[in-house]
Amino acid sequence: MPEDPPPFFDHHVFVCTNKGGCADEGSKKLAKHMKSQAKAMGLKRVRVNTTGCMGRCKFGPVFAVYPEGVWYSPQDRDDVEEILATHLRDGGRVERLMLPGRKR
Amino acid sequence: MPEDPPPFFDHHVFVCTNKGGCADEGSKKLAKHMKSQAKAMGLKRVRVNTTGCMGRCKFGPVFAVYPEGVWYSPQDRDDVEEILATHLRDGGRVERLMLPGRKR
Repeated sequence: MPEDPPPFFDHHVFVCTNKGGCADEGSKKLAKHMKSQAKAMGLKRVRVNTTGCMGRCKFGPVFAVYPEGVWYSPQDRDDVEEILATHLRDGGRVERLMLPGRKR
Repeated sequence: MPEDPPPFFDHHVFVCTNKGGCADEGSKKLAKHMKSQAKAMGLKRVRVNTTGCMGRCKFGPVFAVYPEGVWYSPQDRDDVEEILATHLRDGGRVERLMLPGRKR
């Protein structure tokens, strides 16, 4: 199998904005904040998109970061900014906001 | 940095259903078909979600598959089924439907 093309984005963030789920936890405003802050920080290869239900409702609001497959549950703007600076800009992790993966 | 949690899905597919963009290319029906066929094929660790504009409009309808970061432009149900069988079930690639990555 040939090598995959180079990734189009460094980090692609997906934010559930499903009504009755994460949207009720304020995910739309947090997604909007992440978008505007990413732009303000000059993170050109970070993309933020909103989605339907990603199936992890009990952790809402959920943000999935790919290609890493790391999921977060930021509660407010400060949490979003911490994810932006620590993970999306600097490549680290905000462990206190991370969701568990599936059971091994 | 500690190891990331195990991925929650084996493949997470994101389908742009933005109006005026990929939705006009029939992406909603193709996303629905992928969801139902993934279920019919027993691919329990494949998730399909719809999103807003992912910024690659000229290639629409666009499907982004993570964590691989491989993007496809299926034109009809047969194309969707080929992606399901070849990539999402068997781990290969459908090269004729793949979008280019960013320039190196």
